[in-house]
Amino acid sequence: MELWFTESHTPNVKFSIRVDRQLYSSQSEFQRIDVFESPEFGRILVLDGYLMMTEKDEFIYHEMITHVPMAVHPNVKSVLVIGAGDGGVIRELTRYPEIEHIDMVEIDEEVVEVSKKYLPQTACAFDDPRLHIFYEDGLKYIRSAHDKYDLIIVDSTDPFGPGEGLFTREFYGNCYKALHEDGILINQHESPFYEEDAMACQRAHKRIVESFPLSRVYQVHIPTYPSGHWLFGFSSKKYHPLKDLDEARWNARGLKCRYYTTTLHRGSFYVPAYVEELLEDVE
Amino acid sequence: MELWFTESHTPNVKFSIRVDRQLYSSQSEFQRIDVFESPEFGRILVLDGYLMMTEKDEFIYHEMITHVPMAVHPNVKSVLVIGAGDGGVIRELTRYPEIEHIDMVEIDEEVVEVSKKYLPQTACAFDDPRLHIFYEDGLKYIRSAHDKYDLIIVDSTDPFGPGEGLFTREFYGNCYKALHEDGILINQHESPFYEEDAMACQRAHKRIVESFPLSRVYQVHIPTYPSGHWLFGFSSKKYHPLKDLDEARWNARGLKCRYYTTTLHRGSFYVPAYVEELLEDVE
Repeated sequence: MELWFTESHTPNVKFSIRVDRQLYSSQSEFQRIDVFESPEFGRILVLDGYLMMTEKDEFIYHEMITHVPMAVHPNVKSVLVIGAGDGGVIRELTRYPEIEHIDMVEIDEEVVEVSKKYLPQTACAFDDPRLHIFYEDGLKYIRSAHDKYDLIIVDSTDPFGPGEGLFTREFYGNCYKALHEDGILINQHESPFYEEDAMACQRAHKRIVESFPLSRVYQVHIPTYPSGHWLFGFSSKKYHPLKDLDEARWNARGLKCRYYTTTLHRGSFYVPAYVEELLEDVE
Repeated sequence: MELWFTESHTPNVKFSIRVDRQLYSSQSEFQRIDVFESPEFGRILVLDGYLMMTEKDEFIYHEMITHVPMAVHPNVKSVLVIGAGDGGVIRELTRYPEIEHIDMVEIDEEVVEVSKKYLPQTACAFDDPRLHIFYEDGLKYIRSAHDKYDLIIVDSTDPFGPGEGLFTREFYGNCYKALHEDGILINQHESPFYEEDAMACQRAHKRIVESFPLSRVYQVHIPTYPSGHWLFGFSSKKYHPLKDLDEARWNARGLKCRYYTTTLHRGSFYVPAYVEELLEDVE
């Protein structure tokens, strides 16, 4: 028997992963949740038919969304994470002893429960005493937060379905208000390659630059995401992602990573000409 | 009707492109050659079932295999190109007026003829008077070349089938001999992500470091290649890919690119930790 999970990256492009078996499938209050076991990628998490993470390449996404701001901001004590139900961002954040408080706002409790049961590789730090989980809409949560966080990480799904509100002007403006005066916002910023993704990427950038004085994107290779070329947004009230990168300080921590290095950190901000143009058009 | 071209990136991963129609199909003396028209990627060239290039993303591959060495070496007059039957490398090289002589060695004349007929976007510079095409095996050709070229670009297929010999110790050693004392060798270096590709990548690197005093890899995002994370090798007798990069000189040329910039050039050499380790293991 052959069993394949297939995702359409565009109506004209399909990516298929051979699957050994389906470990979990349900319709939560917010979305369909599936977990599969696959020979190439280990366990994979699928929400509403879109591949969210695989055990083989999740380290790339989670290291890059976390360590880039942590190597720039000199004193992160309080962090807000929106989304991140699989736990990967929490795992990386809890490697930093100076972080005192992590609020995580995930709309769908079932994603966390499923991850605890089926994805122990990422869902391994949910019992950290510094973590406080709120099961609610990040868009609503952020409205009442003022001058509260050093770092906000938006580990959202795509800009349609439950994650749609996390790509709005209102949301980015509220993130700005929720951050301290030297705070940093990191968001998953879609891909610049396929046309529809590129438009989403450009739209998000346009809205962020209206809220933050400094806004850059950085790129990563994520083999299981559409085109493999993925962007994160780095938006900041004060710190520059390269000028304020303290390589010696971060390297002195001795944190072992498989993707992130402080050298790669620099290179990830050097994006292709066509991506520069895509973003400059709305700056 | 639905028509899909599918390539297996591993036995457990498939990438599929919707196709409007097959424009060409034949078995040459060396390989099967297919050209398809696709709504997402324009025309695509397939050799022995493996996707070689698409009109939508070929600029990434061809700019990065060409402009990186051209921005480092201060005086390229004589170039050898091995493979490159689609013409993309020749198109980029002929943008440099100081290049006086280009030898291109392609084993399969039919690839060039098919490209001239069906892929005018890449096969647009084959009538440049500086170009001399030899239809023979690059592995044999290089044996008799001594101290002849400033730059060798190996635009090969994968390390099996007709391209196999272009990943051998003998071949790299002969490239070294064929280069002037300050020459540079660039080769397509496979991907570090999927295990079999990573092993090919490591093996190639091991063989190159035995022949060249300086050998680095640089990375690009090529959405239609396995994992989308692709490497090129930069091997050199004298010039360092970053220390000898002359950004001002290259930018003064006013060459317009869609992927390459001299800033991205730097970043492309800053590879992930796991790629550094893969290569260090054999250095």
